[in-house]
Amino acid sequence: MKISFNNDYSEGAHPNILKKIVEKNLESNIGYGCDDYCKQARDLILKEIDCPTSKIHFFVGGTQTNLTFIASVLRPHQAVICCESGHINVHETGSVEATGHKVLTTPAFLGKVKIEEIDKCLKYHQDEHMVMPKMVYISNSTEIGTLYTLKELKKLYAYCQKNNLYLFVDGARLGSAITAKSNDVTLKDFAKYCDAFYIGGTKHGLLFGEALVINNNDLEEDFRFIMKQKGALLAKGFLLGIQFKELFVNNLFYEIGKHENTMAETIQNAFIKKEIELFINSNTNQIFPILSKKQYDELDKKYLFSIWKKLDNNRIITRFVTSWATKQEDVDNLINDIKKL
Amino acid sequence: MKISFNNDYSEGAHPNILKKIVEKNLESNIGYGCDDYCKQARDLILKEIDCPTSKIHFFVGGTQTNLTFIASVLRPHQAVICCESGHINVHETGSVEATGHKVLTTPAFLGKVKIEEIDKCLKYHQDEHMVMPKMVYISNSTEIGTLYTLKELKKLYAYCQKNNLYLFVDGARLGSAITAKSNDVTLKDFAKYCDAFYIGGTKHGLLFGEALVINNNDLEEDFRFIMKQKGALLAKGFLLGIQFKELFVNNLFYEIGKHENTMAETIQNAFIKKEIELFINSNTNQIFPILSKKQYDELDKKYLFSIWKKLDNNRIITRFVTSWATKQEDVDNLINDIKKL
Amino acid sequence: MKISFNNDYSEGAHPNILKKIVEKNLESNIGYGCDDYCKQARDLILKEIDCPTSKIHFFVGGTQTNLTFIASVLRPHQAVICCESGHINVHETGSVEATGHKVLTTPAFLGKVKIEEIDKCLKYHQDEHMVMPKMVYISNSTEIGTLYTLKELKKLYAYCQKNNLYLFVDGARLGSAITAKSNDVTLKDFAKYCDAFYIGGTKHGLLFGEALVINNNDLEEDFRFIMKQKGALLAKGFLLGIQFKELFVNNLFYEIGKHENTMAETIQNAFIKKEIELFINSNTNQIFPILSKKQYDELDKKYLFSIWKKLDNNRIITRFVTSWATKQEDVDNLINDIKKL
Amino acid sequence: MKISFNNDYSEGAHPNILKKIVEKNLESNIGYGCDDYCKQARDLILKEIDCPTSKIHFFVGGTQTNLTFIASVLRPHQAVICCESGHINVHETGSVEATGHKVLTTPAFLGKVKIEEIDKCLKYHQDEHMVMPKMVYISNSTEIGTLYTLKELKKLYAYCQKNNLYLFVDGARLGSAITAKSNDVTLKDFAKYCDAFYIGGTKHGLLFGEALVINNNDLEEDFRFIMKQKGALLAKGFLLGIQFKELFVNNLFYEIGKHENTMAETIQNAFIKKEIELFINSNTNQIFPILSKKQYDELDKKYLFSIWKKLDNNRIITRFVTSWATKQEDVDNLINDIKKL
Repeated sequence: MKISFNNDYSEGAHPNILKKIVEKNLESNIGYGCDDYCKQARDLILKEIDCPTSKIHFFVGGTQTNLTFIASVLRPHQAVICCESGHINVHETGSVEATGHKVLTTPAFLGKVKIEEIDKCLKYHQDEHMVMPKMVYISNSTEIGTLYTLKELKKLYAYCQKNNLYLFVDGARLGSAITAKSNDVTLKDFAKYCDAFYIGGTKHGLLFGEALVINNNDLEEDFRFIMKQKGALLAKGFLLGIQFKELFVNNLFYEIGKHENTMAETIQNAFIKKEIELFINSNTNQIFPILSKKQYDELDKKYLFSIWKKLDNNRIITRFVTSWATKQEDVDNLINDIKKL
Repeated sequence: MKISFNNDYSEGAHPNILKKIVEKNLESNIGYGCDDYCKQARDLILKEIDCPTSKIHFFVGGTQTNLTFIASVLRPHQAVICCESGHINVHETGSVEATGHKVLTTPAFLGKVKIEEIDKCLKYHQDEHMVMPKMVYISNSTEIGTLYTLKELKKLYAYCQKNNLYLFVDGARLGSAITAKSNDVTLKDFAKYCDAFYIGGTKHGLLFGEALVINNNDLEEDFRFIMKQKGALLAKGFLLGIQFKELFVNNLFYEIGKHENTMAETIQNAFIKKEIELFINSNTNQIFPILSKKQYDELDKKYLFSIWKKLDNNRIITRFVTSWATKQEDVDNLINDIKKL
Repeated sequence: MKISFNNDYSEGAHPNILKKIVEKNLESNIGYGCDDYCKQARDLILKEIDCPTSKIHFFVGGTQTNLTFIASVLRPHQAVICCESGHINVHETGSVEATGHKVLTTPAFLGKVKIEEIDKCLKYHQDEHMVMPKMVYISNSTEIGTLYTLKELKKLYAYCQKNNLYLFVDGARLGSAITAKSNDVTLKDFAKYCDAFYIGGTKHGLLFGEALVINNNDLEEDFRFIMKQKGALLAKGFLLGIQFKELFVNNLFYEIGKHENTMAETIQNAFIKKEIELFINSNTNQIFPILSKKQYDELDKKYLFSIWKKLDNNRIITRFVTSWATKQEDVDNLINDIKKL
Repeated sequence: MKISFNNDYSEGAHPNILKKIVEKNLESNIGYGCDDYCKQARDLILKEIDCPTSKIHFFVGGTQTNLTFIASVLRPHQAVICCESGHINVHETGSVEATGHKVLTTPAFLGKVKIEEIDKCLKYHQDEHMVMPKMVYISNSTEIGTLYTLKELKKLYAYCQKNNLYLFVDGARLGSAITAKSNDVTLKDFAKYCDAFYIGGTKHGLLFGEALVINNNDLEEDFRFIMKQKGALLAKGFLLGIQFKELFVNNLFYEIGKHENTMAETIQNAFIKKEIELFINSNTNQIFPILSKKQYDELDKKYLFSIWKKLDNNRIITRFVTSWATKQEDVDNLINDIKKL
């Protein structure tokens, strides 16, 4: 059995989280997210983001969160802008289009959108023969583990507000982003500088779960109807409440992030030391060393990791991912094997 | 805190199930339902239904299962027929219509469809100005806990086959149905006499999960694409595999059913003894005593149960639901209090 | 060749209308309804309805008008209520559902909705597990040629306003309705007592065309985007402008209505005289005599008309429809033949 | 009033066409395209394309034709590939996405797709996390008036067949394409080398109308249901039959094409003679001279034409369009004014 650096959703839940699920197992709770744990979890998050007027809804997974929020907010002729590598554009099997909306794309710059490109897109869409851009979707960290700076986020949100666009942040890996060394954006900032964002749990220590935070109260109306319609209202919603409560009650959210980032950094440093080129210099839990075919084959014997893109016959961008479950000993082994490459 | 007979999704998971989740928690698995546990669970179910050619997909919840299967199978102009009380018609916030399809209704007879009514519906829809009925949806047990007999199921399926209709069975409460005293339909029969059905786990001892069994191989093509598009492909799909494996490895599926049905029967007998009228004579885990306002108020002090329908100012159809988590002592207490009514 | 009383869309256009199309044929106009004729037609209609703040959009056909308006106005979880016989419920092949919205039905009383029934529907839909009723759709004249009185319309609109429902009137046969003997609702009233309605042209002397009047300005926003998206923005939109201008410039709208109603009345009187039972006593351009098999066969030799419903083996509800194109001599012949039955 | 070279849908209908509409105006016909004229028109077209097994459906407009055909043919997870400038991608307000399907784009090469680019797209979409490309959409002539050669069409169709993709040709301007000097593809070829195509009438002498030809009989099933659902079944369908019959009964289809192409060529030659650069060298009814600001202003005084794209402050790609209605004297005037630039 290979040691997995394949992704951050290969194991169950952080032991603290699972312990709580076990503890509460025989308790009887109200269904569909109307229970006390959900309430407590919401309160903890609202306190953490310092924005009591925001509203929080718990989902099981990211695609569901994205499609439900976008479908709830846009009118039929309105489109969402994202960069070409955006998850909703590429890896959700057309889930947004299946709710009737076009995804407009702009070039990706290290996984991020640029305001000038959004502006071009906006200026191009001028009349009723074309869709109307109404939302900007970004991910943080991005698909390739990069981060928006506070300055970038503020400027982007200001641009969106001026141009009557909603800003929505996919935070499937927000925990790793927030705790990255180079990061300067806090959860409080996300409550201030976007219309909605979500805090990913599935890839951050939970069995499953994403916490959608809607800052713009106009976008909250009847939201639970749309959740139910899309099959996104979990019957045993208290399972989400229990988990998110535990994630925020004792800073576990930050601890997990630090662990996964440290593990990733250590590995990345080993690659650097070995003078192996990186696709990007990552601060988060995904790293992208560019391996030769020989190096790839060598590591492939013992480790599970993925091919991001083949540059040519002998250069492969690979991806190694760490998580709450990544063990120090596995990292040590990997580093040893990197040294020997 | 009241004792809950409110529904069958108020607690976590049957201890055997949860134990397995805990045991496997730190194991690393492949994502999205391609893991070994899912494979083993599928094999166990296929053996149980004695139909190796069927295909099995695991979902998190029932609404998601219904909308994904229906959207995958129907062309845009095709509609699904169900009885007026059908869950997809009433309690899923228009999820089927949101995928573009009309839900046609026929009168409900004790929660069940009648072939003559379906036939009327079919004969009425004759040309391209009307939708084309293409699927019949039933629930077993039904919304009010009634059951289709094997004879009824066979006749319905024969009718569907003759008339080029798919038959789809919502089995959110199939576990209770299959183990009901009066039941004569086995899982094997469901593999033979419908195009697809699902085995509900959420209301039957799992944290969450429904196992969709597609018997008609024509309906299997590209199914996972539609699952992903609807946000129904769980990242940590192995959680579903672990749970369904445990449900079927040692007859737990049947044990849970027997427990919940026995608990329900005991309570129903207490109501009968007290000469309290029943809305229907139930064999499954939902019972429907008709209480006077005074009786209702009395039981409401200590127990959580729901109002199904108010018949008049003094007659309330109530619903009591049992589950794997229902305790004998709680039932004993309730029976004692029924005696005192 | 049989003489047709089959429907009101069997011939081309009223000669005055067609003459204008021919006159303007070689003129060069701006596309997509932004031309001068559309403007003039809009102005004439606004004057006629005495409501300068309403907005008018021209469509080619009725199904398109219905689906575009409903899809533009409702959010994903919202539904439209109509009576069971409503055109959008039965005869538009699920076009509303195809845009994602459930059509909720109430019993039909002579083709009309009843407020009490709508109210029941509203009270039943209470939480996020069910769709949210948000619009009431009626037709005037109805599917069976009946009419709403001014009192009924006012009460219905007041009810809708109080309950936060939009009222939308399908006026495919509004011309016949407005000019019916028993009618007391004017176009001005429709500008006052509903959120939107349309004035049917296809069945009222035009080659094709429906004029949607949106009274509620909240529902006007970006409407042309939705029209374009649904394929409802005619390239040579001026054809609609030319026709609707002619329809309203010299009271042609009313003249056509009077002609078709008078023709229908004359025929209906012949049936009454012959003591042939009527399904309803009609004031509009559709009449529904109940014929015996023998009577049906007799008239069927020379005339084209349709079967509405077979009551039993010897009683057939038939439908005869008149239009701007119905000729006095054809009516005379028919009456003669009715006498001989 | 300026002389219009703005587009090919500014006037009514070719006099021969309109004459027929007037002649048949008082005839009574069956509705919804089931009349004799539609039958005769279909037969004429089938003879012209020499493919008796194809099926023909008449639509009012192009967007409607595109969205109806695509929605009818694709399953929910399937996508259509077109080049970036494709009409369905840019100028139909997301109509395809509104039916649930993603539009995948490849770079445009003079308005055309390249097989290598389609192949890249196909190879990139490999699993159920991404949409499945299932159709290639092209226009002929393209958005910029270019043409596919027979060799290109054959290769593209062979590629599509090999890769299980449908090929669909938007022929809104097929009449101009077929009659272009450099063209070597006949209507017969389109019956052989694609799954479906349509013959545009709106921009080719009809009041309105597009004739969709479905060559692949698998794609014909229940097609009229989808047409009705999308509001695309014209009540007075005989108007389409009358027009298309006249278009094909006496080679009018080809005559109109020759006229519009000759007019365009004459104008283009005048620009060439004046040494004004062309964006592309056109053989069809759209030409694209690149004017200086001064030249633009000069012609703008007397003529209506459009800006295609501003290259820089002093270079404007303009578009002049000719049609059946373009008059020799207007062309002569324009040429004179070009000479004076």
